[in-house]
Amino acid sequence: MEDKNEEREELALEPDYDAIQEQRSDELMELLDRHEAKALRERLEEMNEFDVAEFLTEIDDARMPLVFRLLSKETAAEVFANFEAPEQEKIINAITDSELAGIVDELYVDDAVDMMEELPANVVKRVMRAATPETRNLINQYLQYPEDSAGSIMTSEFIDLKKYMSVKEAFARIRRIGEDKETIYICFVTSATRKLEGIVTVKDLLLADYDTEISEIMDTNVIFASTTEDQESVSEKFSDYDLMVMPVVDKEMRLVGIVTVDDVIDVMEQETTEDIEKMAGMLPSDTPYSRTSVTDIWKNRIPWLLFLMLSATFTSMILTNFESMLAVVPALVAFIPMLMGTGGNSGAQSSTAVIRSLSLGDIEPRDALKVMWKEWRVALLCGATLSLVNFGKMLLVDGLLLHNDGVTVLVAATVSLSILFIVMFAKVVGSLLPILAEKLGVDPAVMANPLISTVTDAVSLLIYIYIAKLILHI
Amino acid sequence: MEDKNEEREELALEPDYDAIQEQRSDELMELLDRHEAKALRERLEEMNEFDVAEFLTEIDDARMPLVFRLLSKETAAEVFANFEAPEQEKIINAITDSELAGIVDELYVDDAVDMMEELPANVVKRVMRAATPETRNLINQYLQYPEDSAGSIMTSEFIDLKKYMSVKEAFARIRRIGEDKETIYICFVTSATRKLEGIVTVKDLLLADYDTEISEIMDTNVIFASTTEDQESVSEKFSDYDLMVMPVVDKEMRLVGIVTVDDVIDVMEQETTEDIEKMAGMLPSDTPYSRTSVTDIWKNRIPWLLFLMLSATFTSMILTNFESMLAVVPALVAFIPMLMGTGGNSGAQSSTAVIRSLSLGDIEPRDALKVMWKEWRVALLCGATLSLVNFGKMLLVDGLLLHNDGVTVLVAATVSLSILFIVMFAKVVGSLLPILAEKLGVDPAVMANPLISTVTDAVSLLIYIYIAKLILHI
Repeated sequence: MEDKNEEREELALEPDYDAIQEQRSDELMELLDRHEAKALRERLEEMNEFDVAEFLTEIDDARMPLVFRLLSKETAAEVFANFEAPEQEKIINAITDSELAGIVDELYVDDAVDMMEELPANVVKRVMRAATPETRNLINQYLQYPEDSAGSIMTSEFIDLKKYMSVKEAFARIRRIGEDKETIYICFVTSATRKLEGIVTVKDLLLADYDTEISEIMDTNVIFASTTEDQESVSEKFSDYDLMVMPVVDKEMRLVGIVTVDDVIDVMEQETTEDIEKMAGMLPSDTPYSRTSVTDIWKNRIPWLLFLMLSATFTSMILTNFESMLAVVPALVAFIPMLMGTGGNSGAQSSTAVIRSLSLGDIEPRDALKVMWKEWRVALLCGATLSLVNFGKMLLVDGLLLHNDGVTVLVAATVSLSILFIVMFAKVVGSLLPILAEKLGVDPAVMANPLISTVTDAVSLLIYIYIAKLILHI
Repeated sequence: MEDKNEEREELALEPDYDAIQEQRSDELMELLDRHEAKALRERLEEMNEFDVAEFLTEIDDARMPLVFRLLSKETAAEVFANFEAPEQEKIINAITDSELAGIVDELYVDDAVDMMEELPANVVKRVMRAATPETRNLINQYLQYPEDSAGSIMTSEFIDLKKYMSVKEAFARIRRIGEDKETIYICFVTSATRKLEGIVTVKDLLLADYDTEISEIMDTNVIFASTTEDQESVSEKFSDYDLMVMPVVDKEMRLVGIVTVDDVIDVMEQETTEDIEKMAGMLPSDTPYSRTSVTDIWKNRIPWLLFLMLSATFTSMILTNFESMLAVVPALVAFIPMLMGTGGNSGAQSSTAVIRSLSLGDIEPRDALKVMWKEWRVALLCGATLSLVNFGKMLLVDGLLLHNDGVTVLVAATVSLSILFIVMFAKVVGSLLPILAEKLGVDPAVMANPLISTVTDAVSLLIYIYIAKLILHI
């Protein structure tokens, strides 16, 4: 008996995840096609809400709301919280007001607020009408916090204790009010006026005697956030201090909510995506790529493309000005793209490294000189390597192999020496511009690759022309 | 009395974080300078270990180990775990073998393993000699898991329960063995042969009656990882399922360790940094920028710079081949950098968006056609916009304003039409190359910006020359 049981569970937990999920999805679809509502419901209720949401997203629009309505109120709310906005909208449009009210009241407030920020206004109105007055008030209050602030991602479902309580009383309170709380493992000790006085973990409580007073075991050295604090700073503290949850206080130090680590992971992903988008010359977007419309993508991408295209007028002007000079040694023109490319790539490496280090807190604006000195030496090494390799390559490949008569030793020297100076300029500027931006309170990520390559393009050209004049006497 | 107390705590918790930390750091430095060891020790013991580690990093090398030795064994181990490798090495070299043994045995195994992977071999030897045989065995075992696998980031300090236990017995066990465990809030139910059978949270335990059997309240639908699973896949599951901890099992489904959310946050940061580095044409590095030596940075950056520089030979060859043609309409040369830049930027936008979406699981290789169709339309919109703006700009600015006689209507048409085709080519290729890489099992991030801009550089030039031939009949 024992043996058999174990085999069953072993199968249920077999390590090949994807295969299991695919098989399960097929089975569920079959139940759906055969209209076996009861069996389907039972299977769905056993599953993780994230997987249920994934499965529902795969069903056609007509049947999806029907399957959703099979779920119990609690599961429905959790699955709903796992949906993206388009699915949430589909559901809201397909259910009755009283069903909607049930879901909204079951949602944790932070999930409800997330939803409100994504949905179209007319749908939001319907949701708000359906919610109970308390939920509505709470949501309204949250919606007033600035976007991307600690206040906007916090939840108000936490456990508060008083410092004069005994451990036994604390456990009684946790048992009584714990069911609806997002985390019960860290409890917050507050004064009569709701000021935050300390925290106590369930681990502390479990390891203490029943009659110990909370004030004896609580930790008053609390890492907290204020409601208006930026979510990026909140997520940095989570990562620095290895937190699971962080209290959020208002200006009077009153505890108003908590931020939990699962929300912070979402914040981190979102902030990183925005940084990466900015670094590639796009406006940051809240919506995932697969759900962004073509015109919205266009709107995010065209501003930088236009700006960068128009600012290339400088390089055009430089080239036009020196047209007659370049005509004397036409071989020089062939290496302009390579020089600009090398400058752009060198600068992008430096700016990317510095931007990422700034955002991880590895370096700070006051390290500017240290960074510059480091980049200067890296640039010298990289520049010298590239310069030497290019000199050899131009003489051997372009000169001997490709019989390009224009590539003389002096031309090769001109191009190679230009590489050295261009790399040094690009790396130092590439590392300093993001730091300068941070100092000025501008997001360093917008100072990244595209902008820096435009600057280095123009300067690279000037360096090249100046060195050509010097060496080739033209 | 109550009032006074509250004022004190309010001050201690005042929201201006940075000011408090700076002030505290000054006070600590003063205590250090006045050799007030006892007061210093008391202050440090009250602080968060992360802050203590930060403070110790600021102290000069001579005094740092002395201050570290003031700490209690428990605090010392936690502070030690918060150090970077260079500080850990300093400490190890400054303390006795028995002090070292104390620290290593206090460390969670995953932290000890992290440390071993970073330290030089001779230091590792000393650490291993100092550890107790059990710790040594455990560390050795962990060091055998592949780098960046679930096995390498897991810890073995978890609470295991049996399904026939009562809630009361479970609490007794947690109280008895909980002190040294990294998390006690999620307990793992295992069979006699250590096979994972389910999980039960302390919340479930707290909300259940004392005589309920664990088998009644445990959840058998467990999200788990296998020891050899890649850490990136582990962190995706954490984010998808909002987990706090995940069990790690071997091939026989035996529970061997757990991964906690704080380790996963570190993994996420590290993986993102590596992606960003690859996208900017650098070899990924484990060490933060501020701690990487100049020669190591050079080693990470020079391969791609060299490759990209040498591959620009193609653009040089194209330009050399069409030298005589370009000499007929010299104005054309001035717009080459702008065309290449626009192509590179357009491609980089697409490849960045696709790479990020792939790594977030927003799109998958099987979406290739959908993505291509989307990018094709975005490219049409972007290309048309840029093309029109450029046509106007060339006639007005270059032609009328700057009196560049070479810029005729036909030249402007040539450049503008080229933009349209270049943007369309760059965006479609930029979005497809990363997907192709993913399909072939290569990291999509290395297919990013620098590589794509090299491809688009050459093709842009060919498009430009072909269109010039067509329109200008040269």
